[in-house]
Amino acid sequence: MGEPRLPRGFRDFPPEIMILRKEVMGKIEHLFQRYGFDPMETTSIELWETVKGKLGHEAENKLMFVFPDFFSKEWLALRYDLTMSLARYVATHHDVPLPFKRYQIGRVWRHEEPQKGRYREFWQCDADTVGSSHPEADAELILLIAEAMDMFDLRRFTVKLNDRSLLAAIFEKELGIKDPIPVYRAIDKLDKIGWQGVRRELEALGMSESMIDRIGELISPSGSEDVLDSLRRRFSSEQVEEAVGRLEEILFIVDDDRVRIDLSLVRGLDYYTGPIFELVIERPKIGSLAGGGRYDKLIGKYGGRDVPATGVSIGVERLIDACLELGIFKLSRRSLSDVYVISIGESSRSYAWKVASTLRKGGLNVSIDLMRRSHSMQRKHAKKLGVRLLAFVGEKEMSSKSVSLYDTETSEKVECSLSDAVDRIRKLLGR
Amino acid sequence: MGEPRLPRGFRDFPPEIMILRKEVMGKIEHLFQRYGFDPMETTSIELWETVKGKLGHEAENKLMFVFPDFFSKEWLALRYDLTMSLARYVATHHDVPLPFKRYQIGRVWRHEEPQKGRYREFWQCDADTVGSSHPEADAELILLIAEAMDMFDLRRFTVKLNDRSLLAAIFEKELGIKDPIPVYRAIDKLDKIGWQGVRRELEALGMSESMIDRIGELISPSGSEDVLDSLRRRFSSEQVEEAVGRLEEILFIVDDDRVRIDLSLVRGLDYYTGPIFELVIERPKIGSLAGGGRYDKLIGKYGGRDVPATGVSIGVERLIDACLELGIFKLSRRSLSDVYVISIGESSRSYAWKVASTLRKGGLNVSIDLMRRSHSMQRKHAKKLGVRLLAFVGEKEMSSKSVSLYDTETSEKVECSLSDAVDRIRKLLGR
Repeated sequence: MGEPRLPRGFRDFPPEIMILRKEVMGKIEHLFQRYGFDPMETTSIELWETVKGKLGHEAENKLMFVFPDFFSKEWLALRYDLTMSLARYVATHHDVPLPFKRYQIGRVWRHEEPQKGRYREFWQCDADTVGSSHPEADAELILLIAEAMDMFDLRRFTVKLNDRSLLAAIFEKELGIKDPIPVYRAIDKLDKIGWQGVRRELEALGMSESMIDRIGELISPSGSEDVLDSLRRRFSSEQVEEAVGRLEEILFIVDDDRVRIDLSLVRGLDYYTGPIFELVIERPKIGSLAGGGRYDKLIGKYGGRDVPATGVSIGVERLIDACLELGIFKLSRRSLSDVYVISIGESSRSYAWKVASTLRKGGLNVSIDLMRRSHSMQRKHAKKLGVRLLAFVGEKEMSSKSVSLYDTETSEKVECSLSDAVDRIRKLLGR
Repeated sequence: MGEPRLPRGFRDFPPEIMILRKEVMGKIEHLFQRYGFDPMETTSIELWETVKGKLGHEAENKLMFVFPDFFSKEWLALRYDLTMSLARYVATHHDVPLPFKRYQIGRVWRHEEPQKGRYREFWQCDADTVGSSHPEADAELILLIAEAMDMFDLRRFTVKLNDRSLLAAIFEKELGIKDPIPVYRAIDKLDKIGWQGVRRELEALGMSESMIDRIGELISPSGSEDVLDSLRRRFSSEQVEEAVGRLEEILFIVDDDRVRIDLSLVRGLDYYTGPIFELVIERPKIGSLAGGGRYDKLIGKYGGRDVPATGVSIGVERLIDACLELGIFKLSRRSLSDVYVISIGESSRSYAWKVASTLRKGGLNVSIDLMRRSHSMQRKHAKKLGVRLLAFVGEKEMSSKSVSLYDTETSEKVECSLSDAVDRIRKLLGR
């Protein structure tokens, strides 16, 4: 038997990585809560019959893990994103008070070709507002992701903002392009392949030079109210007017000049219907760190009435990678333990357990020797784990009901009674 | 199309339930950390070839979700428990510093027949210590689950403690039973079917009256050192002596008379090799709330050397059910929001957003109207969500840069400047 493998594109997170991931996800979770979103968990598996026909060909036929359940004989699908199950939930729970604002942080599975930063099992951090058709619901999500970046000290970002119905009004109605989807797909690559690349793709679609020039001129400016003003002047249709008005309201509430109207933003998912947005940072070049948009027609696909909805997803895997690359995060600890209780010699071992128990009941994270090692080996292990404080416990400490503390960061030594130990340790740790 | 269904045995957790679940799991997580366990996440899916042959016939052939991956042509298995992937991880990472103490809280999947309190997708909360063969590692886990119960105010519990190698020494060597597994299975049902029921099962196995009486006499007393003393006197073999010594050390460290030696405890999983334990509460009658044991031979099954290990699992689903039934937990809130910003009239809406933003940046959880509703409808929604504080914002407040707070619990009214609002609200909330 060879060494056990993991399925391709899957990975474990040992403590030295999980400690960082938990900190990051915990901060995002609190941010969601501050913005009035509440926690929800949906099933990780859906019936295939429930999911199919909602996400488009590529997702359903190439990316989803779909499999037969040998017992029930039904076909099951691992969750592809968190939005689908939210939509299914709202469609089947008619008593949910609207607006329904929920966040969910959880695993999703996609059958992508694994590569740097891309896995078949990864985490999504989503916040969605169901029930409001007003632009303030979209604006609130943009405020949220902007604050998320500020929180992680990634202040040099741009939020690209566009509107699917504006795109439709311009490309379909005004420019008269019958099937705009391939055009959108080409435009969507602007960041990756540049305008000359997009131009070649549009030529390959059989477009005229003059049409391509018009498109180039339309999507090139990025800005704020000025871009919207010029659109309003050029295209005086009702649909354009409506979408432009919506975007203006969003810009007004968000009031942050890092948010820019960008008509080249398309976003992949088929289900968007209104405002869409994506947050990108200047460096490192790792694509978007958050994105979302309005999907007013998805919930209705589950068989009931349409309910307007808008949502955002923070790309936590990329966020962590970006912050590690920029030195904002460090993988510095293997353990959350504050104190390592080191017992010196056999005779004081039961007192060492008493010390550990006292510190734990005092709310501290405490490690203690479980290997009956020498005290120098215990110190070595504490160092390997990155535990800051050592609490030495020997016969002397046992007879005086005390502990000898050593701070490995400052080299400070403190002797104190066991009853004072929790307070003294909190002071050393600055809590 | 009918209303979308969920797969049988699966369920969603809406906010009113998730708020409670998060609180409970958060407390357990901090408890794990206090005991020196660190977070880890393993993949939710394993290769079937890696898993098979480790968990016994029933788990592998009836309970595991096993399915073909249509792309890679490999067979995959959804994670059945968290111990398996820990063992696989340790077996393939030879540089892990020992002892390795990790906790993991996550979903597992089992193809059980769904019934009250039993689902096909549920959460496990596990803490395991890998690397130590000493009884203090087992004792630490028992201390941990005892403190967990105290923390949730479930103080009337018993931890049953036994040892697999003690069972083997007595039943196989001393009583000469060649295949003790069916005997263990019968004994394991003592709580459910009583001694008369166990007696009938042992008779059905073809056992003599005198042997059954000896077994009955062996497993009936539950106690502490006294039970161990009498075992030592009756069976003077080395293996009995060793196991009894181990259990004595555990009792000595744990030092809690709610921990009782109970030779009728068997526990289902095939992989246990040493001390095993299970925590049960008197009421409600819902079986064990936590349990675990030592499995020194599991890691070696992944192809390398044996590494001693011991672990515990807290049955968080049952714990929540028990606390709800006893009134220790209440499902009282639909939202974590502290404050609902209520805008009175159109003209002050943008000021309302400024108020929300100020409170959010001050660390408060804040909801704000997204539906352009009347202020009485906004109040209604706040009430439905269970948000305690209302912050009224109208033209008066806008012109004086203030907010009018109303505490729905105490009926207290407070008017204050926007710059004081965060502090005033914290005071009202008692934080």
